Amino acid sequence: MQAANLPQRLTEALGPDTVLTQPDDIAPWLADWRGIYRGQAQAVVRPRTVDEVSRCLALCQQAAVPVVPRGGNTGLCGAATPDGQPLNVVLSLDRMHAIRSLDTIANTMVAEAGCILGNLRRAAADANRLLPLSLAAEDSCQIGGNLATNAGGVNVVRYGMARELVLGVEAVLPNGEVFHGLRTLRKDNTGYDLKQLLIGSEGTLGVITAAALRLFPRTDTRSVVLAAVESPQQALELYALLFEQCGARLQAFEFFTGACLDLVLTHAEGVQEPFAQRYPAYVLVELADTAEEDALNALLERVIGEALERGLCHDAAVSTSLAQLQALWKLREEISEAQRADGPHLKHDVSLPIEQIPAFMVSMQARLHTLDPAIRPFIFGHFGDGNLHYNLSRPAGAPKDWAATHEDAVTGTVLDEVMRYGGSISAEHGIGQLKRHAFLQYKDPLELRLMREIKRAFDPAGIMNPGKLL
Amino acid sequence: MQAANLPQRLTEALGPDTVLTQPDDIAPWLADWRGIYRGQAQAVVRPRTVDEVSRCLALCQQAAVPVVPRGGNTGLCGAATPDGQPLNVVLSLDRMHAIRSLDTIANTMVAEAGCILGNLRRAAADANRLLPLSLAAEDSCQIGGNLATNAGGVNVVRYGMARELVLGVEAVLPNGEVFHGLRTLRKDNTGYDLKQLLIGSEGTLGVITAAALRLFPRTDTRSVVLAAVESPQQALELYALLFEQCGARLQAFEFFTGACLDLVLTHAEGVQEPFAQRYPAYVLVELADTAEEDALNALLERVIGEALERGLCHDAAVSTSLAQLQALWKLREEISEAQRADGPHLKHDVSLPIEQIPAFMVSMQARLHTLDPAIRPFIFGHFGDGNLHYNLSRPAGAPKDWAATHEDAVTGTVLDEVMRYGGSISAEHGIGQLKRHAFLQYKDPLELRLMREIKRAFDPAGIMNPGKLL
Repeated sequence: MQAANLPQRLTEALGPDTVLTQPDDIAPWLADWRGIYRGQAQAVVRPRTVDEVSRCLALCQQAAVPVVPRGGNTGLCGAATPDGQPLNVVLSLDRMHAIRSLDTIANTMVAEAGCILGNLRRAAADANRLLPLSLAAEDSCQIGGNLATNAGGVNVVRYGMARELVLGVEAVLPNGEVFHGLRTLRKDNTGYDLKQLLIGSEGTLGVITAAALRLFPRTDTRSVVLAAVESPQQALELYALLFEQCGARLQAFEFFTGACLDLVLTHAEGVQEPFAQRYPAYVLVELADTAEEDALNALLERVIGEALERGLCHDAAVSTSLAQLQALWKLREEISEAQRADGPHLKHDVSLPIEQIPAFMVSMQARLHTLDPAIRPFIFGHFGDGNLHYNLSRPAGAPKDWAATHEDAVTGTVLDEVMRYGGSISAEHGIGQLKRHAFLQYKDPLELRLMREIKRAFDPAGIMNPGKLL
Repeated sequence: MQAANLPQRLTEALGPDTVLTQPDDIAPWLADWRGIYRGQAQAVVRPRTVDEVSRCLALCQQAAVPVVPRGGNTGLCGAATPDGQPLNVVLSLDRMHAIRSLDTIANTMVAEAGCILGNLRRAAADANRLLPLSLAAEDSCQIGGNLATNAGGVNVVRYGMARELVLGVEAVLPNGEVFHGLRTLRKDNTGYDLKQLLIGSEGTLGVITAAALRLFPRTDTRSVVLAAVESPQQALELYALLFEQCGARLQAFEFFTGACLDLVLTHAEGVQEPFAQRYPAYVLVELADTAEEDALNALLERVIGEALERGLCHDAAVSTSLAQLQALWKLREEISEAQRADGPHLKHDVSLPIEQIPAFMVSMQARLHTLDPAIRPFIFGHFGDGNLHYNLSRPAGAPKDWAATHEDAVTGTVLDEVMRYGGSISAEHGIGQLKRHAFLQYKDPLELRLMREIKRAFDPAGIMNPGKLL
């Protein structure tokens, strides 16, 4: 079968409104949202059912045509953007957006891949349950993409990555076979746990079409504190204290430097200086529980009191209203946008063994200084998970293309140092196109070999999302 | 290389005290602890280091000799017992029992495969931390075997299966290559999560030699209630209420029928009738928290009060001392032993979507009645995880070999019904030799095919634990 006939075959099989082939119709599907990547495709397919996904993939495999699965297009690594091959087919899941079931006894939700994460969170909340996956893009990202990239977010410290919220997965393999793994069982020791391969595979093994997700009790009682700390070492000790004393209530433990706060106060609207003076760094802690607001506030105040006494923080602002809570969170949430306003920069989504963060920060700073003492670091992230967004902006006065021209040297230095401390070059954003080179460079050859063999088992024709990950 | 030379080669490579070859020395390693399975082997190897494991596997692969990894020999499915091939080599991890690290800031523990689970739990407790994996065999099972079989236990409802406690794994592949996956990162989105394949693979892909485990805050404040319920439906509603109101404090939710209580009161020492009258079934609930005993007791009493008011249970006994708490747990813990004392029986470790348990119990009972109305069911298990030990004892007066002669018909009926309700034929015990036939019968052929291809990728020579799982 000729690859060039494929759009016609797809249209015959799926109907003209499901298959876009006109250049103008296709154009919006060829770039990532940041405009960093742009590729080509001969068609965009928007199936409504798992059967349509199956027929699409079977036809593409017969034609030996590459398929690029696409969710909400909120990824940061270009994993859902086609490469430069003109024959690519983009397979969008956006029309598969049904919640197939939501059970408040079993505490499970079965959602199709195209469901917007925020909609799923609201549906759970309406049923008095919590879907804990929460991230900045939640009102445009899709759950299928969240699972294909094993998304993280702000509540990982308590609930884990997207992977840990999944009970079962329905997926279509490249040959069109349907993987009927949509089980809602908490325990199922019957062979290798295949869904774990699909989760985090960035569309290179098959297409996730639906998932069974765990729901949790709503934790509407929330208490937030912003603590001013001297150093990452203090943040670490504060984390250990909170972990030990607050147990499962510890829902978020975020970190940002004083430089990040400067940036937010400069660029964001409606934010306020939290303390009378500026400090080297800040920690934002959220506790949450199913009940007893007074008890939760008392616990947080007691632990923060102990932290102040033991010198683990300089000052602390505890939220006493929802408005205050939101105002404290806003200081953290606005950092990415403020850095964007500041200009192009180099992002590094890395993780470290949490106990190594203080030493890493010191030695990394020294290495940066050697490269260029004027580089402006804006370091923030999900400290409680060992996840830092170690972002670097150009020196004042440097040309606008500084990030582009210095990427190899600067990013290489950061990632070398991360690996030296036993960290990961991608904590939660994945590999995609952006980090493929680094991935192939740093990953153990044995692991790469096993991954390639697994890829061959799932996708012997090699049509799934070429140029991404492996 | 001749397989028959292998013991000599192993002895040369690893030293005589590491390689057992005398029939009397080998004999204890050839049977499972229940005495159901017995196999053969030409040698037992007891390495002390990952390097010795590597050399052992490389030599076995060169000689094309099957290797059977062995942990604490507490499994219930014969996965660690060699088959009838006289050339088998049993690879015992019992001498690799070092705790390589325990970090109370990172809240991680790196333990070698041969560590006894109970020792790891005590080491964590001594460091003011909790390793939540807890099961009946914990003072003889080994963590390597726990991970190779993805063990469950009584705290899964809160902390998940063994899989969910693992951050990283070190393993040796059949060709002797070492998989250096002993990372302690909470977030690491760099390719397929290969450790997930080793976990639960029952020694068919490689040999786990060490693992990095998550530790949790100690939850020394415990509160337990035994509630008498009319039916599984009531148990389910009680579960939903506790889940919603107690959140993460819900640490165990166990179920057993009145028949199980009869058996325990008949066979166990030092147990007492918990209520003035007997009820159809019982639920044992444990809440646990890091702090505030009064608050925890008050919460449990309030929720149980509501349950009594809403008619979700007939009666309830709340523990008010550690002795009482242990006495209530003993009623649940003694069931397996009491059933053993009662005589041979058929065990079924199954799981169901939790909301289906009441309907399953009704229809299963009807099907059993058709088979033989005198079969005596003793049903208990980790209800909160949807996991039932649906065990069946012989009719009064039936011959002692009833279990053996009726296994095919009875077990077939149970597993058919479990599958009809979307359940799993093995919740936490795994497949091993015991359930291999059923596994191959019930598992989706697509999943079996993918598993076989993964097996080929890890173990192309097919030497790892033949006759188990796949």
